Amino acid sequence: MTSERLKIMLLGPLTAGKKREETIQNVKKTYDSVKHPQTDIEVVLIKQGSSFINTRFDASLNTSYALLEMEKAEDKGFDAIYNGCFADVGVTAARERLNIPVLGAGHASITIATLLGRRFSILTPLKNGIPLMEDLVRSYGLESKLASVRSLDIPVEQLSVQSKKLKQRLLEEAEKTIKEDGADVIVFGCGGLIGLEKWLQNKLKIPVISPTIGLKVLESLLNIGLSHSKIAYPSPPPEKERLIKY
Amino acid sequence: MTSERLKIMLLGPLTAGKKREETIQNVKKTYDSVKHPQTDIEVVLIKQGSSFINTRFDASLNTSYALLEMEKAEDKGFDAIYNGCFADVGVTAARERLNIPVLGAGHASITIATLLGRRFSILTPLKNGIPLMEDLVRSYGLESKLASVRSLDIPVEQLSVQSKKLKQRLLEEAEKTIKEDGADVIVFGCGGLIGLEKWLQNKLKIPVISPTIGLKVLESLLNIGLSHSKIAYPSPPPEKERLIKY
Amino acid sequence: MTSERLKIMLLGPLTAGKKREETIQNVKKTYDSVKHPQTDIEVVLIKQGSSFINTRFDASLNTSYALLEMEKAEDKGFDAIYNGCFADVGVTAARERLNIPVLGAGHASITIATLLGRRFSILTPLKNGIPLMEDLVRSYGLESKLASVRSLDIPVEQLSVQSKKLKQRLLEEAEKTIKEDGADVIVFGCGGLIGLEKWLQNKLKIPVISPTIGLKVLESLLNIGLSHSKIAYPSPPPEKERLIKY
Amino acid sequence: MTSERLKIMLLGPLTAGKKREETIQNVKKTYDSVKHPQTDIEVVLIKQGSSFINTRFDASLNTSYALLEMEKAEDKGFDAIYNGCFADVGVTAARERLNIPVLGAGHASITIATLLGRRFSILTPLKNGIPLMEDLVRSYGLESKLASVRSLDIPVEQLSVQSKKLKQRLLEEAEKTIKEDGADVIVFGCGGLIGLEKWLQNKLKIPVISPTIGLKVLESLLNIGLSHSKIAYPSPPPEKERLIKY
Amino acid sequence: MTSERLKIMLLGPLTAGKKREETIQNVKKTYDSVKHPQTDIEVVLIKQGSSFINTRFDASLNTSYALLEMEKAEDKGFDAIYNGCFADVGVTAARERLNIPVLGAGHASITIATLLGRRFSILTPLKNGIPLMEDLVRSYGLESKLASVRSLDIPVEQLSVQSKKLKQRLLEEAEKTIKEDGADVIVFGCGGLIGLEKWLQNKLKIPVISPTIGLKVLESLLNIGLSHSKIAYPSPPPEKERLIKY
Amino acid sequence: MTSERLKIMLLGPLTAGKKREETIQNVKKTYDSVKHPQTDIEVVLIKQGSSFINTRFDASLNTSYALLEMEKAEDKGFDAIYNGCFADVGVTAARERLNIPVLGAGHASITIATLLGRRFSILTPLKNGIPLMEDLVRSYGLESKLASVRSLDIPVEQLSVQSKKLKQRLLEEAEKTIKEDGADVIVFGCGGLIGLEKWLQNKLKIPVISPTIGLKVLESLLNIGLSHSKIAYPSPPPEKERLIKY
Repeated sequence: MTSERLKIMLLGPLTAGKKREETIQNVKKTYDSVKHPQTDIEVVLIKQGSSFINTRFDASLNTSYALLEMEKAEDKGFDAIYNGCFADVGVTAARERLNIPVLGAGHASITIATLLGRRFSILTPLKNGIPLMEDLVRSYGLESKLASVRSLDIPVEQLSVQSKKLKQRLLEEAEKTIKEDGADVIVFGCGGLIGLEKWLQNKLKIPVISPTIGLKVLESLLNIGLSHSKIAYPSPPPEKERLIKY
Repeated sequence: MTSERLKIMLLGPLTAGKKREETIQNVKKTYDSVKHPQTDIEVVLIKQGSSFINTRFDASLNTSYALLEMEKAEDKGFDAIYNGCFADVGVTAARERLNIPVLGAGHASITIATLLGRRFSILTPLKNGIPLMEDLVRSYGLESKLASVRSLDIPVEQLSVQSKKLKQRLLEEAEKTIKEDGADVIVFGCGGLIGLEKWLQNKLKIPVISPTIGLKVLESLLNIGLSHSKIAYPSPPPEKERLIKY
Repeated sequence: MTSERLKIMLLGPLTAGKKREETIQNVKKTYDSVKHPQTDIEVVLIKQGSSFINTRFDASLNTSYALLEMEKAEDKGFDAIYNGCFADVGVTAARERLNIPVLGAGHASITIATLLGRRFSILTPLKNGIPLMEDLVRSYGLESKLASVRSLDIPVEQLSVQSKKLKQRLLEEAEKTIKEDGADVIVFGCGGLIGLEKWLQNKLKIPVISPTIGLKVLESLLNIGLSHSKIAYPSPPPEKERLIKY
Repeated sequence: MTSERLKIMLLGPLTAGKKREETIQNVKKTYDSVKHPQTDIEVVLIKQGSSFINTRFDASLNTSYALLEMEKAEDKGFDAIYNGCFADVGVTAARERLNIPVLGAGHASITIATLLGRRFSILTPLKNGIPLMEDLVRSYGLESKLASVRSLDIPVEQLSVQSKKLKQRLLEEAEKTIKEDGADVIVFGCGGLIGLEKWLQNKLKIPVISPTIGLKVLESLLNIGLSHSKIAYPSPPPEKERLIKY
Repeated sequence: MTSERLKIMLLGPLTAGKKREETIQNVKKTYDSVKHPQTDIEVVLIKQGSSFINTRFDASLNTSYALLEMEKAEDKGFDAIYNGCFADVGVTAARERLNIPVLGAGHASITIATLLGRRFSILTPLKNGIPLMEDLVRSYGLESKLASVRSLDIPVEQLSVQSKKLKQRLLEEAEKTIKEDGADVIVFGCGGLIGLEKWLQNKLKIPVISPTIGLKVLESLLNIGLSHSKIAYPSPPPEKERLIKY
Repeated sequence: MTSERLKIMLLGPLTAGKKREETIQNVKKTYDSVKHPQTDIEVVLIKQGSSFINTRFDASLNTSYALLEMEKAEDKGFDAIYNGCFADVGVTAARERLNIPVLGAGHASITIATLLGRRFSILTPLKNGIPLMEDLVRSYGLESKLASVRSLDIPVEQLSVQSKKLKQRLLEEAEKTIKEDGADVIVFGCGGLIGLEKWLQNKLKIPVISPTIGLKVLESLLNIGLSHSKIAYPSPPPEKERLIKY
């Protein structure tokens, strides 16, 4: 392992609306608790767009803005970007634009899920997020490993890890994924659920994966000296005419 | 067939830079020549973003802006949107947001290709467009029908249907898709190639599909009274906090 | 759009038994109501074979005869053939034999279904038609998009669009495809259901596709100048010894 | 093993034209040399249709007639039908219509191929047979095991197992399937090649499968008491109106 | 058919513990009743390892020992090996090591199942055997044909074909595979069930396949002169340093 | 991150023959250089079996012995097992038998490859290793991401990272995977290649993955508190009769 410090941009491709400061602090605290001592994390939210991401509509609406923030990462001295929203908003494009490693929480979480079991299920805040998750899994070619996506019927912005109702809903739906859908690994399809993975894992006795695993994978890649392939994600030709007000 | 007039937004999810006016006029002229007499077409380009779409990076950079234009379509009285760029920028999200039919040129073109042959190839302006096209085909679940994507090595903004070089490159690459890749249908992966499909079809004696076919399909859907499924593309819940300057 | 008249053979690969004249008139009336003004439709039924197509057995029994009728289309001055039976009886072979466009109702319907939703279900008259439909969908490589095939338990020859029972069965089974099978688009797997698509669509609020859409697609192909690929459907070598009494 | 005699219809779904008697005798002799002593084989050719099957067109043209011959098998006292033409003409429909085992040479050959290697290639008389073979393999869900289909460029009716040219072409194309396509098993896609499998196997040192294997498989099924599933191939409802002159 | 005697090793990759002699006699008797008169069968069990195979753990634990027994087959004068345990323990490796045909009961059974129906289900002794069976089916690329694997909840060593409870459990689970899982062929996933296939077949009216079918297939291969491909299963290079105490 | 020390068994499922001590020391040194400071690694080789693993035959021959060593891990106080041989010998069975995390180098390497690119290729010592690698990739359901497996034509036991010839062969074959097979990530299919990944990565400018990445992934899983799912890998029932001399 190298002994240099690693500076990672923790991107939230959402504005968080009125919860902006609270969100930044919570995310920072969460990832600081799992990161390697030599890692420094800076949380960045976008400045325009939807406040939270519940649907494919929200994800698309925020794509340009997420990309505009990620574009700045190399100039700002970041060593890597971890896109902490499960929808992997703008990740593919950022991998084309940048040379530093860019990793999405969705990609990392479902990939690690395939290492631990045979069929995973994703829990997502709203029903409208189901096609979003299914499309994402398919885009990574892992649809044969997906048991199901189930919704908690609670919007992202109302998820509160202290809430009894949230715990109850998590348990109800997770148990259905096991008994009815054949899942053997649970994946949290939203950063707002971080903090409940250990609790749920103890209840279910199967692995429960949250987006935090992706930060560890990203640190491992950086330690070993690996990044995404620039043949798979070729740099775009230099732009001549681009018009952005942001 | 109904006898009402149909008003269709022909969206170009690009600014076209200095070629903006010229592009709007060309697209208008092209689609007016294939449309049904009862159809009215209005060409709309986005006001911010990349000038043309050659890469996944360009496509993502323009997604928010494309969506912001498409969002207005119902209020502006359009009966449907045809997104004329092969990358189908923002189409899925617009289908969630709107109730009028929204169709992407990429989706329509490759779907019709599967009606006419066994394995199709896509010709795309730049090599960087290859992963964009491959991802698109996979997102529609039609990867088993794709023979190949080949590049003309000419950026979108330099495509000129009068150009001898363009014709030569089209013929060269199209013949390779047939002989080396096993294609039996050619799909133009860019609106900038419209006008050369008949010429190439005569040379190759196999179907050559351009984005114009999608307008005809959209007219057919409107005639028969069909639109996208709102179970597949559920309307997003009402937004409370959204911050956009556009 | 071209301004020439188009003469389309509307082939029913069945004899219709005692209902022959009635069937010819009904089909003619149905397609005349959706066709483009410049299109002329002539309904052709086969002269030998099974009266209606409920099973793979019926479909195979009628294949030679359907092909013998379609073979004559070019000599009779038709511009295209629309094979209106969902089983696409003899379509592949006719595409090999002929140069004019040949399109099957099954192929067209399920292909358009994939443009409008994520997973479609087919409603078919008898349970025995289920493997027929499943095989057809698989032959087009679209099995990953198929939610289910469900039967109405009413033979084709007894389908009557005025029947209360038929409406009730349609609604019952269509609702099951949505709730139990995850369908978001309904496809009528039989021409005998034409006329009930709007009614069902209003009830379910999702797209309901009948074989009429295929005629519109075929008109679009003719308008744009597209036909099936003769590499995919190569002309058979000239026959020397063929023995047919028909 | 039971000790009863088994009477098997060896169906050729072709008229064989002027070579009718010669073909019947050759096929009889071939299968008599591989059959079990307790098996009796009767060769049946169809009375109308194409003389030989080189294309999907030929196969479809002969489907009704093949079915009409197979329909009579139970009444004529046959214990099973072996459809010796690789195109499996009418096999699915005959399985619906009959209760005795019906097996197609194509289905049997490629299924046994998957038992012996990882990827098989099919050799077919004419190039026009390539899509026929590819469709067949896909209809059995074995496309992931298919390395390639290659053509000998010799029509079925001109195949002569004594011919030097045929041997040369077989060797040439078979070697290409191994070196260029990654095949490790060769399948003869035509009964007209029977007799050359041992010779080619000795040259190539990999398994060469001809349609004769299917007769052995059928005998094994009969010995063990197995037939096709009548849930998978449900009997058609009784016909009321059927019009056939044959 | 050749008239030479065939000597087949019937390998049981298990020690059978205290039931060793009884198991050898039962297996011998079973296969003697289905074999061809010219076939001689010798039953061989391994000398170390797990007594019976219920899990992937058991199968792996016995792999080295199964291979050590199969290695000796050519020197001992066997013409072929039939590995009668459904888990196909060591079969792939033995095919690499040997030139005589080696066939596994699992591979043969599920392959024949695909010849007889559309979707098969496997009945396995214990629940722990389900992933074993699913992995096996996937390793042969036939997962699209698998309706389900269901457990009888009776360990292999307690299966008794006279037991009323076993018959009841077989019937219960087999009926569920048909009604709930869509199976149309049943496959016995364990040699311990041999003897009940006819009884169950009469009850269900669909094919019930036991490992005995594989012996008939192996005899057919030997009769026709076919073995596994040595390109697919290449002989390992000569070993220099190998350390085995067995 | 927790601050406890982690004790990991680094299993080599091979005896290494005369190179036993040298191999243990090299592997120890290699993994010590990439491990986290809090991790302790103990290298364990099997005591019987093949000296190195070049083929499926070698892998199967060593399976029982590898499992016997892994079985002891919990009693010996290990926190996890990293099976450093790419063939993942006995990993599935060990996951059933044990509760501590067990990870295979093959599984980890190809899974991480899918995070970094679109299509990976594996470099393997001998040609006989190609089917081994292809089967492994398929067993993890990642065959759609595999560009190719290519052989260096040097047996494992002769791989020497100082060798000029090895570097030359690596470069030659890796370049072919990119140019001819479409790979964008390279995976070393053998622990014997560790040490050359950085060198090759600098030459090719695409990611080169060696089995060391798996140790980092395993550390990440342990840090986050994740292990394999015991529903996917259920514990075998207690054995009553087992006979092993080892």
